[in-house]
Amino acid sequence: MADLNIKDKSIESSFLSSALATEGHFRDLAEFHAWFRSRSEANTFKVAAIPFSEMVDWHFDPVSGNLVHKSGRFFSIEGLRVKTNFGGPKQWEQPIINQPEIGILGIVTKKFGGLRYFLMQAKMEPGNVNVLQISPTVQATKSNYTQVHQGLRPLFLDYFLDRSKARVLVDQLQSEQGARFLRKRNRNMIVEIEDEIDLPEDFCWLTLGQLKELLKIDNLVNMDARSVLSGIRYAAEGERPAELAGLNGFAKDLLVSMSDRRGGRHARTEIISWFTGLKAKYECSAESVPLKELTAWRRTPTEISHESNNFFSVMAVSVQAGNREVRSWAQPLVKQAAVGLVGFLVKKIDNVLHVLVQAKLEPGFLDLVEMMPTVCFSDVECLTRQKTLPPFAEKFMAPAPERIRYAAILSEEGGRFYHSQNKYMVVEAAETEEFKLPENYIWMTVAQLLEFGRYNNYLSIETRSLLSCLNLL
Amino acid sequence: MADLNIKDKSIESSFLSSALATEGHFRDLAEFHAWFRSRSEANTFKVAAIPFSEMVDWHFDPVSGNLVHKSGRFFSIEGLRVKTNFGGPKQWEQPIINQPEIGILGIVTKKFGGLRYFLMQAKMEPGNVNVLQISPTVQATKSNYTQVHQGLRPLFLDYFLDRSKARVLVDQLQSEQGARFLRKRNRNMIVEIEDEIDLPEDFCWLTLGQLKELLKIDNLVNMDARSVLSGIRYAAEGERPAELAGLNGFAKDLLVSMSDRRGGRHARTEIISWFTGLKAKYECSAESVPLKELTAWRRTPTEISHESNNFFSVMAVSVQAGNREVRSWAQPLVKQAAVGLVGFLVKKIDNVLHVLVQAKLEPGFLDLVEMMPTVCFSDVECLTRQKTLPPFAEKFMAPAPERIRYAAILSEEGGRFYHSQNKYMVVEAAETEEFKLPENYIWMTVAQLLEFGRYNNYLSIETRSLLSCLNLL
Repeated sequence: MADLNIKDKSIESSFLSSALATEGHFRDLAEFHAWFRSRSEANTFKVAAIPFSEMVDWHFDPVSGNLVHKSGRFFSIEGLRVKTNFGGPKQWEQPIINQPEIGILGIVTKKFGGLRYFLMQAKMEPGNVNVLQISPTVQATKSNYTQVHQGLRPLFLDYFLDRSKARVLVDQLQSEQGARFLRKRNRNMIVEIEDEIDLPEDFCWLTLGQLKELLKIDNLVNMDARSVLSGIRYAAEGERPAELAGLNGFAKDLLVSMSDRRGGRHARTEIISWFTGLKAKYECSAESVPLKELTAWRRTPTEISHESNNFFSVMAVSVQAGNREVRSWAQPLVKQAAVGLVGFLVKKIDNVLHVLVQAKLEPGFLDLVEMMPTVCFSDVECLTRQKTLPPFAEKFMAPAPERIRYAAILSEEGGRFYHSQNKYMVVEAAETEEFKLPENYIWMTVAQLLEFGRYNNYLSIETRSLLSCLNLL
Repeated sequence: MADLNIKDKSIESSFLSSALATEGHFRDLAEFHAWFRSRSEANTFKVAAIPFSEMVDWHFDPVSGNLVHKSGRFFSIEGLRVKTNFGGPKQWEQPIINQPEIGILGIVTKKFGGLRYFLMQAKMEPGNVNVLQISPTVQATKSNYTQVHQGLRPLFLDYFLDRSKARVLVDQLQSEQGARFLRKRNRNMIVEIEDEIDLPEDFCWLTLGQLKELLKIDNLVNMDARSVLSGIRYAAEGERPAELAGLNGFAKDLLVSMSDRRGGRHARTEIISWFTGLKAKYECSAESVPLKELTAWRRTPTEISHESNNFFSVMAVSVQAGNREVRSWAQPLVKQAAVGLVGFLVKKIDNVLHVLVQAKLEPGFLDLVEMMPTVCFSDVECLTRQKTLPPFAEKFMAPAPERIRYAAILSEEGGRFYHSQNKYMVVEAAETEEFKLPENYIWMTVAQLLEFGRYNNYLSIETRSLLSCLNLL
């Protein structure tokens, strides 16, 4: 490996300056939106629901009933039999997406005139409600870049594969939805380049501040981009950024919490002990079984769904796209009807902003439990499985407007989910309000949460999504 | 949870003082050895190899051929079918120990007259070459403390289960041998008490310095104790301990490396990127299969072994013990004939001691690869599978005596392995010597390695064992 001695401080400081900049290559966001509209008009996308039997290259395996690609690669839809001592239901069966390969979600960054920019792509995904969203520079499965599907090689991929061409600023292995994916993980990377590049027409350079502003708009910045951006820190551990002096209100509280050195309400040793104790206590056996063995799920020519019509279903689509490596294909998607809720309750404790973190078990997690937002549920699940609202959910139902620090509806992975959306919220509780916490909840500073994000399988995708929305502007 | 605000600094400083103390409750180690000899004489232990058919409560499952306990708990011996793109052999089958429950390995600590002591136990394990070894205060499987086997409840267990009775100083979930166990992990804990306790006759209080001295003796401090002790840090991140001034030579180099703030040859971001890249590159499918389906392994009335007689075998023993919760029982053990080699090559880089760490894949690892010592192999494996010595092994074959920083033969888990021993070594290379590293090797400071040890499934048991042997005296 290249012998770069990364100066963490200067990198983090450049992230922070970029997070405070809303003007850049696009003079303002109006100019961005005009560009984005033009990309949407220039490309033609057609996504249509089709029967499973019309999916080119996909079939149900005659023995297992699993839905598989003819190459044996990409992903498959299989069955999972779950037993656990955690939370609500103690055992169930469900279809699950098995995608064992580790792909790359990567953003190229470059400084122009001292200011850091991020190379983003206007990319279509068949499951997106609005088709086109802002995506990382590269989203590549291993099948993708080893050319299993004979498509074009993704642009800019070499910056992520070849250490001599770019400097790695962030490179973390991160999980995705444990309720839908069997131990899926992707490599989340940010790499800095010095090359001059020609900007292809579906790409643009944005400051971090501009990206943060775009994250306030419903369904614009996609899940993969949010996941990668969540790896950014504005300060090395214990460093107090000079920019603090220019901030007020929630932005100041946030940056204090992101650069806190004192360790917050609980020292890291204590948080690790809390998490270790829960991993020792909770048990989960998640056994892969043939899809056709799931007794409560039925398959029609167009969908696989639960006999109660709850939870989610599996469907098929055909896709035609102007700006993708492969221009037409068919694939399965997982469909979830309801809009879910993902929210952090935050509160100042001893003058430092803390977030209320939940340790939650999902059957597809590699390591049993991950750190999730305070609330994280689809309302179907909530209404049917649990019959009551989960802890703290009422804080998000009708919060006083002055307590809402963030709220937008964001899409989940449009390459696997059909029209899947969650309402993401950050709600601040009064400093005087006291909460009694169930055993699997704990208060942390944002700095503590970000530090866990550097290691595998600590922060869930929903936690990372919501972290990426935190905004100093 | 209790709202302790742990002052990391004072804890680490008390560990360091204890590590420099060789006098304590035992005036000197001669007194310790007299006590240990008396415990050995006072207790009667009988371990005898028996045919599988004579094992009370254990049997081969008629369908799978797996070796199981009648309760369905404890552990079982099952089959594993492995395919990987890592290292030497690309596919094989082997028996593996499946012990899905997370147990507790715990040491009680207490200050007497300002000096920190550790409560250690002289405990027999049937697989130990010398039967009795120094063990943690508590070694309890979940079956153990939920009383599956109807034995006595382990002494002092409540200090680890009840937060109100002790203060948690270390509490980490750690893996065990990935070549022999299927995703086994234990909770490694150190808890501080203030209670006065009556010292049972098989227990003693030792300073950390005394424990470090005992670690120089072959087969005296057991694997579980070493694993727990490896979680100890002598300095909070970036803190320079005052004790540095009193040290010289290797001890000084070691403490500098354990408290290094500058980040060493590679920044942590860079090490994480290296590890992430390898996890993305290497693949391993480890499929559980019935033991009777392993074609190259044969079962006789007394052992399960490979047709080549290489690798390892499974045998059965009957046990009679005076000082255990259950006084007589039978169980399977895994037997490995050869003494293996586990070694760290260390070297000063820019005046800071670094250790050469290997990322190695073992089929039983939960997360594909872990950070292992520079060399880590049993010579049977080496001779038969690999036909050549692994990288850097020659550095440990006949090192100049003045380059040896540590060398002793230590036992692996005597509750599962029969007479399993490894030679543990630390060898220091000259500062001027340059090494070309294969892609899965990297130089780290000891501080960096210890920081990874706070998170799950980074440091292998062999790495932790060897870290625990590092000694300032």
